[in-house]
Amino acid sequence: MTLKYLPLALVASCLLSVSAMAKQAPSFDEADLKVAAELRDQALNSSLDYEIVESLTTEVGPRMAGTPGDAAAVKWGVAKLKELGFDKVWTEPVTFTTWKRGVEMAEVIAPYPQPLVITALGFSVATPEDGLSAEIIQFDDLDALKNAPEGIAEGKIVFIKNRMERARDGSGYGPAVAARGQGASQAAAKGAVGILIRSIGTDSDRMAHTGMMRYDEGIKKIPAAALSAPDADLLENMIRRGKPVTVKMTIGAKQGGEYTSHNVIGEVTGSEKPEEYVIIGAHLDSWDLGTGALDDGAGIGITTAAAKLILGLPERPKRSIRVIMFANEEQGLVGGKAYAEAHKDHIKNIITAAESDFGAGKIWRIDSKVKPEAIPAVKQMAEVMEPLGISYGNNQAGGGPDLIPLRGKGISVFSLRQDGTDYFDYHHTPNDTLDKIDPEALRQNTAAYVIFAYLSAQMNGDFGTGFHQK
Amino acid sequence: MTLKYLPLALVASCLLSVSAMAKQAPSFDEADLKVAAELRDQALNSSLDYEIVESLTTEVGPRMAGTPGDAAAVKWGVAKLKELGFDKVWTEPVTFTTWKRGVEMAEVIAPYPQPLVITALGFSVATPEDGLSAEIIQFDDLDALKNAPEGIAEGKIVFIKNRMERARDGSGYGPAVAARGQGASQAAAKGAVGILIRSIGTDSDRMAHTGMMRYDEGIKKIPAAALSAPDADLLENMIRRGKPVTVKMTIGAKQGGEYTSHNVIGEVTGSEKPEEYVIIGAHLDSWDLGTGALDDGAGIGITTAAAKLILGLPERPKRSIRVIMFANEEQGLVGGKAYAEAHKDHIKNIITAAESDFGAGKIWRIDSKVKPEAIPAVKQMAEVMEPLGISYGNNQAGGGPDLIPLRGKGISVFSLRQDGTDYFDYHHTPNDTLDKIDPEALRQNTAAYVIFAYLSAQMNGDFGTGFHQK
Repeated sequence: MTLKYLPLALVASCLLSVSAMAKQAPSFDEADLKVAAELRDQALNSSLDYEIVESLTTEVGPRMAGTPGDAAAVKWGVAKLKELGFDKVWTEPVTFTTWKRGVEMAEVIAPYPQPLVITALGFSVATPEDGLSAEIIQFDDLDALKNAPEGIAEGKIVFIKNRMERARDGSGYGPAVAARGQGASQAAAKGAVGILIRSIGTDSDRMAHTGMMRYDEGIKKIPAAALSAPDADLLENMIRRGKPVTVKMTIGAKQGGEYTSHNVIGEVTGSEKPEEYVIIGAHLDSWDLGTGALDDGAGIGITTAAAKLILGLPERPKRSIRVIMFANEEQGLVGGKAYAEAHKDHIKNIITAAESDFGAGKIWRIDSKVKPEAIPAVKQMAEVMEPLGISYGNNQAGGGPDLIPLRGKGISVFSLRQDGTDYFDYHHTPNDTLDKIDPEALRQNTAAYVIFAYLSAQMNGDFGTGFHQK
Repeated sequence: MTLKYLPLALVASCLLSVSAMAKQAPSFDEADLKVAAELRDQALNSSLDYEIVESLTTEVGPRMAGTPGDAAAVKWGVAKLKELGFDKVWTEPVTFTTWKRGVEMAEVIAPYPQPLVITALGFSVATPEDGLSAEIIQFDDLDALKNAPEGIAEGKIVFIKNRMERARDGSGYGPAVAARGQGASQAAAKGAVGILIRSIGTDSDRMAHTGMMRYDEGIKKIPAAALSAPDADLLENMIRRGKPVTVKMTIGAKQGGEYTSHNVIGEVTGSEKPEEYVIIGAHLDSWDLGTGALDDGAGIGITTAAAKLILGLPERPKRSIRVIMFANEEQGLVGGKAYAEAHKDHIKNIITAAESDFGAGKIWRIDSKVKPEAIPAVKQMAEVMEPLGISYGNNQAGGGPDLIPLRGKGISVFSLRQDGTDYFDYHHTPNDTLDKIDPEALRQNTAAYVIFAYLSAQMNGDFGTGFHQK
């Protein structure tokens, strides 16, 4: 059937419908923009975000996936969301294999005996119980190791010395972190018996940065650890003298059994379209070395406090807002994957999503991943953030690590980009503690998240779906 | 015999002699001032100071008194001074009781179990092997503990929470450090079984600061440790919640036997009055946690490099210059005491002295302890330092910790006061490493020390003696 055979009344009805759709182009009502501005100002005068991080880091502290701290954090999350009066609070199971850190020590044996500060990389195997001693072979970076001749590291401990660059957007992380993720298998492929990398971080504190590594199938698993920056300097200085440098490393890490943790979810239930919802969230787990204040207690504080402000409005917003405290982000986005799998049949209910997982620095830009016709609405949203020093960036948002699995299913996402200049000074170290959070910067984040969450829940039209980013 | 009976010729001779002394009022020849300025500029263009610290921290590293690192440092010092061509290099024995650090761990047991970062204070006794668990009792500072009722801490672990203030001149150290030195015996006197203090430092890094403590005679010795600043914050935050907080601390430290280390001395031997000498120096030992770059590798580098510049002159200065690398400053100025004792019969040979032991920050002021008539000469010296941003301060110099015993015997001293704003961020922690030294600031120090040492060795007249400062 083509248009010319249609009855005229039907044609008129079609045209009217198109016109109605045009009126429904993504936008925000003036009244909602005003409420968003009020919520922003309330956020700037509230310390709830900081109180939440203080509570999590003090009452739970380290909460590595699969540890008693993980269980305590889930319990804490449920209790906190209930205490704050969320309309619905529930958990969803997240199952994974665990890893335990054991003893970790290293020392130069020759020619200049002295101790080294190291930490095992996540999922490293152990050394023999009485340690592994071998000569060091140094590489500038992962590529130099990859391109080196076969067998070059036979019987040696590989040392990769590349340094991470400091940048506001954290762009130094990607290039540097490959050495952590792939170094062990690349070194083993060249015959190495162990690997030490310079910590993936931007500080010069004598604390090593942990983080995940992966073994390639079919290649021998060798123990892997990170040296603190000063210790990597020290090793370089020794090596420069030209004599063989022998190091002993002792790592007691091991894989544990299967464990079931939980994503913890609190909902502000919408008044008109409760089945449609906006996701804001952060990950509840941390590494074991610090108290997980920046990574990611800050995100928990920011997003929970933002939703709590919306709970304080006289009326619920039209759509629901879910605060998701993701389980086990650190060891493989496991909570994010579990959520995407559990909700795969209702992906279209997710209006949009943003995760806060880059510390507690101020937000300086908002990026979107929305259909082109929604960009004007995003710019309206950005205008409400303008007094916070935030401007609109581009339509290439990533949304955050735990949203990668949902992104793969096509959801719209936002990135509220934080200043991460100092983030990698503390990331994955014992130094990730409450004192590193500036309460004022945290409030600025909460103010931006409350604008994002409220306006997205109230919007006319939608941001679109079907983006399927990897 | 009085003047009226003296032959006239003798009176005339006496008057002449007084007149000659007046001509010999402390001063510097123009030519010497010019050489001093040249040495200053050479220092600013040399990296020898940094190379010396790099060598010490890389090839020796930690060198706590009585450890193999101590022995390695003495060997290193002798070799370095010989390599640099000092006219005489020798060692003098320094004997003391040793102390060994063992295991050190702490954790909150209840109500919020999580680990704490601590380090044992120097000469602390051990806890029982399986740890000491007790409720925490918190005090604002040492005075609050002193003034508390008898028995208030019965069976408890005392926690002193006072914070050290940051200051350029390090003036926050004195008031804060009393808690470290006296806390254990004060706590034990109130019935405590252990003590934890907030680290005496200005940082917020998760590293505890070690340092000496002393037990009073006749009071029970209880184990003593410092918490890192973030851990002290954490404990405060837990205590604020009002429930009893129980901590388990495990310390394996113990006293060792007697050990003989050595002061290492290098001399630039004077050409006219070789028996008279100027002391510049620093301490060669360090605590065990870091590599002792700031405390006191920097001082070793500065003073050794300054003397080496003088060795490079076409002629030796009139008087000798001794670089003294003092043994075991950290555990009680033992090397300084040994030097003063060994040389007590020749104190008047010491023209003046200055120790560099406050890190690697730039010098901003020079203070003296000299006879009043020598102050104009000091001001002449300060003028040569003026391009370095250094001005004359006052006549109340202390000279440095290892000079306290010599000061007690009346010698003149100088204080070349460094900017210590950041010094206590790293002091006595694992973070005292080479990367904390700014080579440019180090050169500025060396430039000031070479002016001081050279001019003092060349001066007309002297700075006086008999000051007997405690």
